[in-house]
Amino acid sequence: MPEQITLYTAKICPWAHRAEITLEESGLPYKRYEIDLKNKPEWYAPKVNPASKVPAIAYGGPDVSPDTPSPESQKIAESGVLIELFADLSSSPALLPTDPVARARARFFIETVTPLFAGAYRGFIARGEDPQAIFKAVEVIQGLLPAEGYAVGQWSIADAAVTPFFARAEVALTNDLGVYEEGKGKATWAVLETDPKYARFRKYLHDLKSRDSFKKTFHPEVIINSYSKQYVRPVVQAHA
Amino acid sequence: MPEQITLYTAKICPWAHRAEITLEESGLPYKRYEIDLKNKPEWYAPKVNPASKVPAIAYGGPDVSPDTPSPESQKIAESGVLIELFADLSSSPALLPTDPVARARARFFIETVTPLFAGAYRGFIARGEDPQAIFKAVEVIQGLLPAEGYAVGQWSIADAAVTPFFARAEVALTNDLGVYEEGKGKATWAVLETDPKYARFRKYLHDLKSRDSFKKTFHPEVIINSYSKQYVRPVVQAHA
Ligand SMILES: [Ca+2]
Repeated sequence: MPEQITLYTAKICPWAHRAEITLEESGLPYKRYEIDLKNKPEWYAPKVNPASKVPAIAYGGPDVSPDTPSPESQKIAESGVLIELFADLSSSPALLPTDPVARARARFFIETVTPLFAGAYRGFIARGEDPQAIFKAVEVIQGLLPAEGYAVGQWSIADAAVTPFFARAEVALTNDLGVYEEGKGKATWAVLETDPKYARFRKYLHDLKSRDSFKKTFHPEVIINSYSKQYVRPVVQAHA
Repeated sequence: MPEQITLYTAKICPWAHRAEITLEESGLPYKRYEIDLKNKPEWYAPKVNPASKVPAIAYGGPDVSPDTPSPESQKIAESGVLIELFADLSSSPALLPTDPVARARARFFIETVTPLFAGAYRGFIARGEDPQAIFKAVEVIQGLLPAEGYAVGQWSIADAAVTPFFARAEVALTNDLGVYEEGKGKATWAVLETDPKYARFRKYLHDLKSRDSFKKTFHPEVIINSYSKQYVRPVVQAHA
């Protein structure tokens, strides 16, 4: 019988979302516990993650309630660490290919695409930077993708790692949430949705969003609610 | 027979140094090719790494001269990707433990210690920031280390990943290289070398530096030469 896994996560957090998608794909049994990031339980930092961030897991030890973590379980944090751990724990389904070069390609995809895409879309929604950076990121992603399928062909943790950022960008832009000029979010996403240049990315995103692991773990209403408070468009005042 | 590995590296670069230490430990045969980062060969970006950075490898394909890389070899970049690849390729010696939790601890060590220590020591030498950040980083490292041995007991890629940063900090500080006030580098390192509070870190660093893989791949004269040009102490002028 596999060791128990308790995942401490938060619907808003793309890093936690990586871990949750991966666990869903793994078939490993787990318990999910939502941490309110604005009002964290007092026991969370001392008993689970001293850095007080999500995601983190309690692994092994007795089967206790998530809000009374056992000192006998292993506490492990950091999304990149956790998705590799779940890949190490699950051989069927395999969450990483067995071929060493394909594994390296998966890890390179994570290390390249995450900062590039997340940096571009956050720069746009949080600081009103040029959305061209998003298109440039998408071109790099298309250059890394094979002609068909996922980041390294079969679905892998490389796909889990990037999906949360794409999905949040889509929700933010199609709802025009961000500090940029009104309408610019919708216009930017419309280019990604219609320009033939971005067809490969579109197909990839469609494939990612079609998976049950994504549908079960994605909560757009939480993102809309949070982003509309966090990214407030400056009011433009007409000067006489 | 294992596939050929050609490592493109540079003595100055801590990220490349990680890959080189790991290859030495792996026992995998490889060729080393030094890239002059200030004057990169024209063929490097188009034929090896479009990002034009080190480390990168050419893996497999025919056994050619490093300066005429074959289109038939796989080109793989990024130090974190490469050290995991070398761990996947080498089972004897094992460069990561087989236990999934120990593997996760090794990866957590890399993800935590690298930005923390590198950020602290670079802040000090490049921007004259408070060296207390270095002591705080060392305290975190000591909290992660087991009572004896390496990051996860046996030597692993976790140790390869952090050694280059510790070694460069020691060279910079003991030679008083940095933009900080004269003498402050030596004084800071002296604390790490004498304060009983840092004994565990001292022992760890000693163990890291004792390995042949380190001795063979570390070139302090290159670092001294480069840092003395890069980090120039502002001249303090006496005002009458
Ligand atoms: Ca692995």
